[in-house]
Amino acid sequence: MEQRIDLLIAGRYLLPTYDKGDLIENGAVAIQGDSIFEIGEATELKKKFADCDRIEEKHGLIMPGLINTHTHAPMSLFRGLADDLPLMTWLQDHIFPIEAKLTADMVYQATLLSCAEMIKSGTTSFCDMYLFAKEVAKAADKSGMRGWIGEVLYDFPSPSYGELKNGFRYVDEMFEMYRNHPLINITVDPHAVYTCSPDLLKRTGEIAADNDTLWVIHLSENDMEVKGCLKQYSRTPVDHLEHLGLLGERVLAAHCVKLDDREIDLLAQRQVSVAHCQESNMKLASGTSPVPALLDRGVTLSIGTDGPASNNDVDLFSEMSSVAKIHKGVSLDPTVMSAEQTLRAATLGGAEALKAVDRIGSLKPGNKADLIVVDLNQPHLTPIYNVVSHLVYAASGADVIHSVINGRMVMKDKTLLTLDEERILATITEIAEQIVQSAE
Amino acid sequence: MEQRIDLLIAGRYLLPTYDKGDLIENGAVAIQGDSIFEIGEATELKKKFADCDRIEEKHGLIMPGLINTHTHAPMSLFRGLADDLPLMTWLQDHIFPIEAKLTADMVYQATLLSCAEMIKSGTTSFCDMYLFAKEVAKAADKSGMRGWIGEVLYDFPSPSYGELKNGFRYVDEMFEMYRNHPLINITVDPHAVYTCSPDLLKRTGEIAADNDTLWVIHLSENDMEVKGCLKQYSRTPVDHLEHLGLLGERVLAAHCVKLDDREIDLLAQRQVSVAHCQESNMKLASGTSPVPALLDRGVTLSIGTDGPASNNDVDLFSEMSSVAKIHKGVSLDPTVMSAEQTLRAATLGGAEALKAVDRIGSLKPGNKADLIVVDLNQPHLTPIYNVVSHLVYAASGADVIHSVINGRMVMKDKTLLTLDEERILATITEIAEQIVQSAE
Repeated sequence: MEQRIDLLIAGRYLLPTYDKGDLIENGAVAIQGDSIFEIGEATELKKKFADCDRIEEKHGLIMPGLINTHTHAPMSLFRGLADDLPLMTWLQDHIFPIEAKLTADMVYQATLLSCAEMIKSGTTSFCDMYLFAKEVAKAADKSGMRGWIGEVLYDFPSPSYGELKNGFRYVDEMFEMYRNHPLINITVDPHAVYTCSPDLLKRTGEIAADNDTLWVIHLSENDMEVKGCLKQYSRTPVDHLEHLGLLGERVLAAHCVKLDDREIDLLAQRQVSVAHCQESNMKLASGTSPVPALLDRGVTLSIGTDGPASNNDVDLFSEMSSVAKIHKGVSLDPTVMSAEQTLRAATLGGAEALKAVDRIGSLKPGNKADLIVVDLNQPHLTPIYNVVSHLVYAASGADVIHSVINGRMVMKDKTLLTLDEERILATITEIAEQIVQSAE
Repeated sequence: MEQRIDLLIAGRYLLPTYDKGDLIENGAVAIQGDSIFEIGEATELKKKFADCDRIEEKHGLIMPGLINTHTHAPMSLFRGLADDLPLMTWLQDHIFPIEAKLTADMVYQATLLSCAEMIKSGTTSFCDMYLFAKEVAKAADKSGMRGWIGEVLYDFPSPSYGELKNGFRYVDEMFEMYRNHPLINITVDPHAVYTCSPDLLKRTGEIAADNDTLWVIHLSENDMEVKGCLKQYSRTPVDHLEHLGLLGERVLAAHCVKLDDREIDLLAQRQVSVAHCQESNMKLASGTSPVPALLDRGVTLSIGTDGPASNNDVDLFSEMSSVAKIHKGVSLDPTVMSAEQTLRAATLGGAEALKAVDRIGSLKPGNKADLIVVDLNQPHLTPIYNVVSHLVYAASGADVIHSVINGRMVMKDKTLLTLDEERILATITEIAEQIVQSAE
């Protein structure tokens, strides 16, 4: 008996993984419910599944949706507010004063804005650490994106939950709210070693273990963090976490700029995953993560944009271009961080870091249907010798035309189907005007 | 009596220079013939010039067209053909064998492709060094772009003109052909110190002086060049040119990655202009040009994408984002290469390098009307606190909606008016298929 499917998407190329050897010319994906039912040649699949919705793009490339493993989506509200400043001036004179006045609604609206930007630029999953994370989750749910979402915890009072004890309750409530949600996953997010006491770090580690989820932290982002940790604990941040017994496979460590070889080996041994945030590390002058070495030792590498206030976008296509180029320039070796390694980090590497390779990161039958279609019929993507090269070195987020998440079409012909883009832009513009006025 | 103008363009913002202090809210530009007649507030200009063509973009930012001071536009034909390889493998095994089979028509078509991409991503002027440069000039003319175009000269036979003596004739003919052209300027382009004898360098210097034009050369691009020059001439490339009496204000030096402080001072003293090609320098693992130091000493800094085979695009918006971020990350100083300095390099700095500040690089009455309109009504450009920050850190070439060059509308609503985009893409795809077949 013929199997029914819901949607067939056919294109000039189907790239089911990051590997250019897997490319299928005139390929197609058959989607049933929330999952990929079959992939293969378009002519064959079109014959097999005659009766279903169809999208055919003769210049389209079908590929896995990109996975952004470190961002602070609501910080889109601060995009361009202050740049080109020393980190502490930026934080203390500009970001912290505004964050102190943040409201739940501002976070909700700003997350909608980032979700709109992420979907439009080809991201289908994101891992977010911020304040008022229930609002982040609510906005992610509204947008139809797949999210790993955590409330940031630290020792001082939070503009979101107030005293730390309320923070634990807030996180518990989030676990309750999203226990069986198909798309939203709750994570436990201690901010960093310089803002969380050893006790807080340990307690969050227990909460993550109890809930079998990720433990997300900023780690070894810059010299200041390393020096401060050495001064306070006589250990580097990595050694500090190891000493506390916290390094393990549920750790997703963002940044990891300042690492020596021994620390890289330790991260590899403990199966810690890294969220590499190249553009933010450059813009904030943190330095360059030793990514070629991380890959050499087998550390799981994924890519994050960091928040839109320190990037200043959440476009993983432009991030991939930076990642692939900068490591060559810094190491003076043009063979490191190849286009395929970079695309892998932004897809399957992200899925590995999020412990979700059984669901996302590649297009194979049984996986969730999280995919995008890129329009190759453009000057900057012509001619086509190597689509992986184009995706990493020449494409931009604006080349994405369709997006499907969990089998649901969230963008068609560059129009968002889950979000009211014009309304979001207008709302954010109003909120930004209030921010400027209240700062004057 | 009321002055007649041809076109009035009004937008949410007018940014006549790179300086955010110059921003005019609800601004407009009045264009008469090929020039800017007046700039100011839209309401005022609309009253003053009632009877003319009008473009009004309520979310548009009007700004000077970007200036790409170093590219090899026809290398779009090789985009993505070979990446992630050591420089010599890339050149000798991939690029040179194909270049040996290049034809004039291939160069013409591939330049049309790059012009299409440049216009679509906001560039209005470009400076190009390549083979079959008459074809580059012809394509630039067809596209309506402003071009500084030179035939690359070196000691060995060229796939374009054959023996060097024919090269000099070829260049002479180009000067004749474009002597009075409003948009095309011919330059003299010795390839580099490692491919041109001292005699050839000197002779090209004389030709440039005789024709009162730019002398364009690749200079101190990587370690190999510097070491080779030291070995052959016992001088660095910069010192070698100084010794030959060739450093001076008509020199536009591309790359300038490997410079020491003394050389930077010498370039400043001799008023040499630099075409900084950050993304190419990264991708080819050449290193990082000491751009903050160049700016400190007052060297004229402009930005080039280099050829699309080593970038892999000619999008100056993405190049600006890289330039502004990478120097911060490499110098570990977040205050270097501010958004304004970066935008300056891509506009007025380019005009200075091309000796054309009396015509382009800023929007002021009397200058040629070379301008673009960027659509700010997008998630990644919302909210708006600082438009210069957005242009450098968040915008992409795809955000450009209109382009005017020399008073002529060359793109409207993202549709090219001077070029047949679909036809160019189809032609290049055919040529690329021939290239692949002939390589098999």
